[in-house]
Amino acid sequence: MNSSSTNLKDVARAAGVSVSTASRALAGKPTISERTRKRVAQAAAELKYHPNIQARSLRTARTYTIGLIVPTLANPFFATMAAAIQQKATLAGLATIISSYSEDPDQLATSIASLRENNVDGMIVVPNPQVTTELVETAKSGTPVVLIDRELSDQGLPTVASDPQPGIEEAVAHLVDHGHKRIGYLAGPSSLSTGAQRLEAFQNACKRNGVTDEFVYHGGFEVEQGRAGTSELLKAEVTALIAGDSMMSLGAMQYLHVNSVEIGKDLALVGFDDLVYTQVQPKPVSVVDQDVEAMGRKALQLLVMALTSSKPLPDSIRTPTTFMSRASTQKQF
Amino acid sequence: MNSSSTNLKDVARAAGVSVSTASRALAGKPTISERTRKRVAQAAAELKYHPNIQARSLRTARTYTIGLIVPTLANPFFATMAAAIQQKATLAGLATIISSYSEDPDQLATSIASLRENNVDGMIVVPNPQVTTELVETAKSGTPVVLIDRELSDQGLPTVASDPQPGIEEAVAHLVDHGHKRIGYLAGPSSLSTGAQRLEAFQNACKRNGVTDEFVYHGGFEVEQGRAGTSELLKAEVTALIAGDSMMSLGAMQYLHVNSVEIGKDLALVGFDDLVYTQVQPKPVSVVDQDVEAMGRKALQLLVMALTSSKPLPDSIRTPTTFMSRASTQKQF
Repeated sequence: MNSSSTNLKDVARAAGVSVSTASRALAGKPTISERTRKRVAQAAAELKYHPNIQARSLRTARTYTIGLIVPTLANPFFATMAAAIQQKATLAGLATIISSYSEDPDQLATSIASLRENNVDGMIVVPNPQVTTELVETAKSGTPVVLIDRELSDQGLPTVASDPQPGIEEAVAHLVDHGHKRIGYLAGPSSLSTGAQRLEAFQNACKRNGVTDEFVYHGGFEVEQGRAGTSELLKAEVTALIAGDSMMSLGAMQYLHVNSVEIGKDLALVGFDDLVYTQVQPKPVSVVDQDVEAMGRKALQLLVMALTSSKPLPDSIRTPTTFMSRASTQKQF
Repeated sequence: MNSSSTNLKDVARAAGVSVSTASRALAGKPTISERTRKRVAQAAAELKYHPNIQARSLRTARTYTIGLIVPTLANPFFATMAAAIQQKATLAGLATIISSYSEDPDQLATSIASLRENNVDGMIVVPNPQVTTELVETAKSGTPVVLIDRELSDQGLPTVASDPQPGIEEAVAHLVDHGHKRIGYLAGPSSLSTGAQRLEAFQNACKRNGVTDEFVYHGGFEVEQGRAGTSELLKAEVTALIAGDSMMSLGAMQYLHVNSVEIGKDLALVGFDDLVYTQVQPKPVSVVDQDVEAMGRKALQLLVMALTSSKPLPDSIRTPTTFMSRASTQKQF
């Protein structure tokens, strides 16, 4: 291998460290251990790596650090998303700093400002519509922003979101196939694209499958509202229930277990997001799955494209949802 | 209220923003929205807040940002810990940047270096013994470091860890009370303080309660090893099983559900950490609980003490574990 084909990634791989560590080690930064510095220097020498040749192809002042802002890590969906993005970023030689904002727009604005002060190369954000201006302004100032999970209308920011239609459509069709006519739906907040689009998908699916869409509980994306909505829809005598997000799924499961309503026997249940608590049950719970790993991977790809190429990015990538049928919906009613 | 008793926190509270946002708004940083800037300025005027008086009591060059490094957010225990620390930090006016290292010491060293380059005021770290030098060096250089969850021997870094003895002791006593003589234990890696101390606690508890401690599976802190260990210990005909961490608890539950071994009837099960998947079950699973919220809160308190006072910090805070008895261990054998 000669110097023109060797890059920092090769050196990092040979030394068994991240690209970020290799970069720091070669720059003589004091925060790298002597042991690591030696290993990297040796790998660079063996591979005849000449950093100056490579440097020309890099943007100036890259920190090899990206920011990720999620509503809360207490929601396992966002924790899983954060873990997936961070893992892929590490493979790409990027460090990730993660921030959360408890669904508070002011905290989100603070997080964005803080990441900018930290000079991140770019950021991936689960947005709130009230902070649209700050996000657009950040992108305009030269720090690429990729949105994930939720769409903001007409802002031109590249976005990775899942398409709820295929998964919800299949869930409703599956329930109708199994004899259900009274299907309840736990809806999220209509102010967020995810809440609005999933409700619309449920209503369309009911129409196409010839069942009523009247059994809707308008809640939020919180466990408590999953419990309250399940209680209310059981009183309305639904025989099946679809939860509109992971937290309400959890609330529904909790309510049903505590009140000894047997899932899959007394009530058919479809959760949202394929998380561990839907799988690890005596009767595993069917779900509408968003493929959070793919969403995270694609968001990172978009961000890396924005950092390394001048080609225009696609406006929006939609990953399809799928329905996973498990024991909770397999009884014929 | 006069100017001498008004501080930045009061202004932030009155304006309904974080201390970090209030600080940036008053400093005229461009990343704060006009709307927020006006609200903060108005609150400061109403409360007669004079930043120069306050500034004297602050350290120079504070960024009001702390770093948090955990092994992985895919482990719900660490995701819960991260959410708890971040929430408390926000209340204290501090932004949190979170990093993870997949239990890879090189990635941990990179994360530490990256946070230092981001000029965090201090950091809270779930450590790995192989990166002790880097952590001690960081603290010596003036960036306070608080360890959480795992102890490093004789390094003088303030540490918040849970004491496994009371919870495991009570779990074993409870199982013996219910007629169990063959109690299995899924042990974590002995290279980490948590793995070693919990195994020792199990052995001591067995001795004190007059039962054998021979049924130990030496695993890691991973789901797969929870499954493998459960399979092995069932072959050894244990009647009760204690898992040594949250991931092995999950593996045990998964194995038992899939193989139709009824928890609480065919086998008594004690999980580790009071996480959602142990609670949301038809027969909720008894656990040894670490009170992760208290651990996070205390670690943040220690870090804030280090940042705001010159008093020496306590070397180590141990939070007691407790045993929570649920349906999975209430049958008499």
